[in-house]
Amino acid sequence: SSTLNLAVVAGDGIGTEVVEQGLLVLEQALHGTGTTVRTTDFDLGARRWHATGETLTDQDLAAIRTHDAILLGAIGDPSVPSGVLERGLLLTLRFALDHYVNLRPGKLFPGVTSPLANPGDVDFVVVREGTEGPYVGNGGAIRVGTPHEVANEVSVNTAFGVERVVRDAFARAAARPRKKLTLVHKHNVLVHAGHLWRRTVEAVNAEFPDVTVDYLHVDAATIFLVTDPARFDVIVTDNLFGDILTDLAAAITGGIGLAASANINPDRTAPSMFEPVHGSAPDIAGQGKADPTATVLSVAMLLDHVGQADAARRVEAAVAADLAERGASERVRSTAEVGKDLAARVAG
Amino acid sequence: SSTLNLAVVAGDGIGTEVVEQGLLVLEQALHGTGTTVRTTDFDLGARRWHATGETLTDQDLAAIRTHDAILLGAIGDPSVPSGVLERGLLLTLRFALDHYVNLRPGKLFPGVTSPLANPGDVDFVVVREGTEGPYVGNGGAIRVGTPHEVANEVSVNTAFGVERVVRDAFARAAARPRKKLTLVHKHNVLVHAGHLWRRTVEAVNAEFPDVTVDYLHVDAATIFLVTDPARFDVIVTDNLFGDILTDLAAAITGGIGLAASANINPDRTAPSMFEPVHGSAPDIAGQGKADPTATVLSVAMLLDHVGQADAARRVEAAVAADLAERGASERVRSTAEVGKDLAARVAG
Ligand SMILES: CC(C)[C@H](C(=O)O)[C@@H](O)C(=O)O
Ligand SMILES: CC(C)[C@H](C(=O)O)[C@@H](O)C(=O)O
Repeated sequence: SSTLNLAVVAGDGIGTEVVEQGLLVLEQALHGTGTTVRTTDFDLGARRWHATGETLTDQDLAAIRTHDAILLGAIGDPSVPSGVLERGLLLTLRFALDHYVNLRPGKLFPGVTSPLANPGDVDFVVVREGTEGPYVGNGGAIRVGTPHEVANEVSVNTAFGVERVVRDAFARAAARPRKKLTLVHKHNVLVHAGHLWRRTVEAVNAEFPDVTVDYLHVDAATIFLVTDPARFDVIVTDNLFGDILTDLAAAITGGIGLAASANINPDRTAPSMFEPVHGSAPDIAGQGKADPTATVLSVAMLLDHVGQADAARRVEAAVAADLAERGASERVRSTAEVGKDLAARVAG
Repeated sequence: SSTLNLAVVAGDGIGTEVVEQGLLVLEQALHGTGTTVRTTDFDLGARRWHATGETLTDQDLAAIRTHDAILLGAIGDPSVPSGVLERGLLLTLRFALDHYVNLRPGKLFPGVTSPLANPGDVDFVVVREGTEGPYVGNGGAIRVGTPHEVANEVSVNTAFGVERVVRDAFARAAARPRKKLTLVHKHNVLVHAGHLWRRTVEAVNAEFPDVTVDYLHVDAATIFLVTDPARFDVIVTDNLFGDILTDLAAAITGGIGLAASANINPDRTAPSMFEPVHGSAPDIAGQGKADPTATVLSVAMLLDHVGQADAARRVEAAVAADLAERGASERVRSTAEVGKDLAARVAG
């Protein structure tokens, strides 16, 4: 028998609500596997910042590092100035723990309504780079608040950083039936970064000759996501384009209430982090209205990452069955009810 | 009687085909107004670059400057390295002629099919900043082609540049029935640029107290564009986010075959430029398959800009009537047939 040491960052708003249900399903999924879950709660987010002025201390980070994985709910609150928690906590975790593969599936489950009239068979995954690009925080401003202010943001892209995520994306594409990889960038305008991405994809393609590669500018990619999303298999893209495309992908596959994500450190030099794509949704927080499904699907990705593929499949199957029956039912369930139903399905 | 001196940059691929029809409609729309069109063709684009290595010379630019407006078809060809024509020609025109308002309507005309199941009443306009942001070309790379390559892209944002486009967007919002302005950015990550945009919108709002303002992160904006596009009235955003959002906007309102745009210099220190959002579409070039409607709608924006509002309304009405009847007809018309039909409708 073994122990899964899980760092839990429930965070703000609906984060605590959805994480509770995620943990319920996680424990049920591991029931009988010989693995038990031991959780450590980390008090991080808006409450902590208001109380102490801290976002993430070195001690917090060192303690989180000792865990096998992280389950994160949501970070952010309107009472905190924009960027403080996002950059000081969420992005700090992603960067410090070297989560260079930000994995976000775009899958339309049977029974789920898409805003698209004819979505087709949508089942792709976005491999979003997680540690570079315009997210590095290498910007700055001068003469702030004057008519002569200049505010710059620097997107940093390295061969090292691009190559490792591109290789990961190729490996994922090679393992999928369609074996197709689409690079999304904007190399006709962002020529330096764009050409680095393009050359890297061309070079790594030699290692994966059975993977078919194509390229789309980010603007064109948004068109295809609404006119022919079934064309996509694996998308690899930079941090900012990945942020944009994955919210759009979530929207066309039933909304961010269903969109899971994994911030993966493939080298396992630090724990990976699993979180729903949605935010803290302060407007519905504390009302039991949040859908915990995105968190539960993130738990499935967590299970895959820690070598519990069978348990992961059971969680996914529970979600698929639950979603297939939702259309038929009139009743709107609470966050806890959905969690309980999913846990019951996992129990079988 | 007066003359409209028009610089014509038909460009590459379908550019020449759609511009021909745009000019036909333009001439018809001005018929009887006392204004005649005098065109100067500029041989710019892939052919010229292959023949001479030139994208846009100082002489070209000086000659273009002497005109009242520019009609542009499309720039770009796969035979030219990515970025050469985009940056050396298209973006050079936008920057040199100070086209700081890149105006792109997102309007779903009656009779046009949207990929969205329930699009609602979509009628917004995106005011995309046109002379700053990540488009400035202030990037660079070191150790290119080695494992130690670093490629940077710098987004430059100035109080001067942001304020003038924000003020223009407010004025447009104030002139529309709903009087609503949505700022789209990503100020929780791109904090320096984002906060400049936010503070500017707050400050300029004081001059337009009857305009309601809200804010969306760019990722969330893509969600609303597919779940509730009718919520938008005027969107103001930076150059790159505007590029992405306007292709998505085109997709949900019937495709880039219908999406018009205007690159406006509101101070009239140089000619403004009118162009369809679509590209040169080499795959269908020379086959008479391109839809000239986006160019014709761009011509309507041109007419508005040169003070021919009545003619502009006639062109829009012709397009609206043509689109309303398209669904009923089985026959696929050629580029020239659509142009001829639109010109006939304008003639009345
Ligand atoms: C909250 C924000 C910093 C974050 C991001 O931009 O990555 C979020 O939008 C996401 O996609 O996880
Ligand atoms: C061709 C390209 C440089 C251009 C842009 O990115 O602005 C195009 O996509 C557009 O939107 O007009």
